[in-house]
Amino acid sequence: MSLDVTFLGTGAGFPCPSRGASALVLRRAGQCWLFDCGEGTQTQLMKSHLRAAKITKIFITHLHGDHIFGLPGLLCTLSLQRSPDASVVPIDIYGPLGLRSFLWRSLELSHSQPLLPYAVHELVPTQDQCPAGEFRDFSGLDRGEALAQAPPGTVLHLDAETDSYLLLEDEELSVRAFRLFHRVPSFGFVLEEKPRPGKLKVHILQELGVPPGPLYGELKRGRAVELSSGVRVQPRDVLSLPVPGRKVCVLGDCSGPVGPGARQLCGQADLLVHEATLEDGQQDTARQRGHSTPGQAARFALDCRAARLVLTHFSQRYRPDGDGRCDIGTLRTEAEAAMGGREVTLAEDFMTIEVPMKN
Amino acid sequence: MSLDVTFLGTGAGFPCPSRGASALVLRRAGQCWLFDCGEGTQTQLMKSHLRAAKITKIFITHLHGDHIFGLPGLLCTLSLQRSPDASVVPIDIYGPLGLRSFLWRSLELSHSQPLLPYAVHELVPTQDQCPAGEFRDFSGLDRGEALAQAPPGTVLHLDAETDSYLLLEDEELSVRAFRLFHRVPSFGFVLEEKPRPGKLKVHILQELGVPPGPLYGELKRGRAVELSSGVRVQPRDVLSLPVPGRKVCVLGDCSGPVGPGARQLCGQADLLVHEATLEDGQQDTARQRGHSTPGQAARFALDCRAARLVLTHFSQRYRPDGDGRCDIGTLRTEAEAAMGGREVTLAEDFMTIEVPMKN
Ligand SMILES: [Zn+2]
Ligand SMILES: [Zn+2]
Ligand SMILES: [Zn+2]
Ligand SMILES: [Zn+2]
Repeated sequence: MSLDVTFLGTGAGFPCPSRGASALVLRRAGQCWLFDCGEGTQTQLMKSHLRAAKITKIFITHLHGDHIFGLPGLLCTLSLQRSPDASVVPIDIYGPLGLRSFLWRSLELSHSQPLLPYAVHELVPTQDQCPAGEFRDFSGLDRGEALAQAPPGTVLHLDAETDSYLLLEDEELSVRAFRLFHRVPSFGFVLEEKPRPGKLKVHILQELGVPPGPLYGELKRGRAVELSSGVRVQPRDVLSLPVPGRKVCVLGDCSGPVGPGARQLCGQADLLVHEATLEDGQQDTARQRGHSTPGQAARFALDCRAARLVLTHFSQRYRPDGDGRCDIGTLRTEAEAAMGGREVTLAEDFMTIEVPMKN
Repeated sequence: MSLDVTFLGTGAGFPCPSRGASALVLRRAGQCWLFDCGEGTQTQLMKSHLRAAKITKIFITHLHGDHIFGLPGLLCTLSLQRSPDASVVPIDIYGPLGLRSFLWRSLELSHSQPLLPYAVHELVPTQDQCPAGEFRDFSGLDRGEALAQAPPGTVLHLDAETDSYLLLEDEELSVRAFRLFHRVPSFGFVLEEKPRPGKLKVHILQELGVPPGPLYGELKRGRAVELSSGVRVQPRDVLSLPVPGRKVCVLGDCSGPVGPGARQLCGQADLLVHEATLEDGQQDTARQRGHSTPGQAARFALDCRAARLVLTHFSQRYRPDGDGRCDIGTLRTEAEAAMGGREVTLAEDFMTIEVPMKN
């Protein structure tokens, strides 16, 4: 099963013709999941090889405009494109507390409550995710009448034990969020596939006299079976090793994680997408603005033992043709130096990165 | 003094790579005035020859997303670009009731109340500007605490005598709004320059013995003067005819005007910008959606005796390479036929149209 990530916007702060505002699409099993939705994302989608109508889930890292101002327009356009007869499975939208009010107000005031059903699941941040003076409590917005009309959804609190928020889990995968420190509360998301059971070793099954049929399925599901001969067969005897799942981590703007959970959650990530807004020499400015440098991102990737680091969310001052100063290549050089020479990728708009299956 | 209009987005409903969502800039006397601000307008501005920092006034025709979803992002970017030392003249934003709440909520929830001061002047629509069931009263939003924090501004009611809203007036010009019928209340805007006084006929002044200096200014301002000889000189004796000002009309989405004032306000417009979302054959659909066809736009232009008609806000289905159906050229053909063969312009993104001075 293929899994890939396509960047639709890789610039910080605001969209430019050369780099859109933050957005990326993770594609897996025929579904597209959108991470952040800066202004212009719907146009970037049209320019890409992806189809907006395939979007079934949206994850928002934080409420800064360069990550959310494209969301009302995208929902309107999706609802124009969907015929009323089409599937009524709502789009699930995950993001910080306040997102539901933002969407509801924007759509209400523009007279464009979409036909498209959607649900907003809000993550309640902790106060230590931003500078003390900047924390805003959005829990009281749109109570009463307004709340009743607003889209459905849930409110998710931090699970102290895992230091994370469990957003969804099924037989194949789980998605968790974890806390980041930024000017405003920010989150990272971890998609983790569950291990796939190993393959049946058919020649051993035949030797043991297991008849093809339901017993194969039982063994594949990890259950021991007893043959009519009275012989008991254990799954480990007839299965090759389970195939580990893949792990993709997408972090929002941050100067670093909050709490002990992030490094473990992102441990052995196959793909880690981390912001690097400013170069190492601007580290003080970066920290003050709640951002990271390539060196910081690389050290986090090393801590997590991530297999591949992709940097994004570059200040719009960086250019491919930078004249020594503000050359985008500087960011790669710094990250690769901090990784001991390992290759680091700088995201570009419309770049697609595959995450191969493991064997 | 030059006056021109540049289209930044000429598509209906949503932005596409080939046609952005609604926005145009009127440039005069070193200032840029923005009319509508669909998603992506700030990126379109960067691609154009215009400078976003020159925007001093913004006019919003109606609250549909394809006309306002770019506004929060534009204000954020403008405030990032302006140094705190820069002029603190607020940007005046004019638009329908509800606009202030939309902006305030978007900026509040995205933690991005801009440093840039702005004021929102809201036009109170009348209930006959949209289908009866669709009218929403936004006058009660954000009262109390929220209102106190919201940006300053005024609330403007219809002046029954002129059937219009006076938005601003100074020595050089006035801007008025008038009512349009659409799925939601919509407005048109009329910029009208006042006549410039005629030129002084210097040879006659000399013949009459008027000494160069302050008396010249008095006469130019239309006041009679008395010379030391006792001779009284009337302005009409020494001034050529006043030069009429120019008039530019920008209409929002509509299936037509509401009330008797529009045709008079737009009378003899030098430039009339009118929507033409669908072709004449789709007139029923257009009317049902509150939109116009080229034929309707042309008849309104004829009624107003407008000198030049420019059509915009085309359904994204129309293409330059349309195969007979959905050819953008059809829209021009239909409009020109209804104008008795007179030339009609179809707006394109980044097209600039000059409105020459009169002599
Ligand atoms: Zn950002
Ligand atoms: Zn941010
Ligand atoms: Zn429109
Ligand atoms: Zn409209």
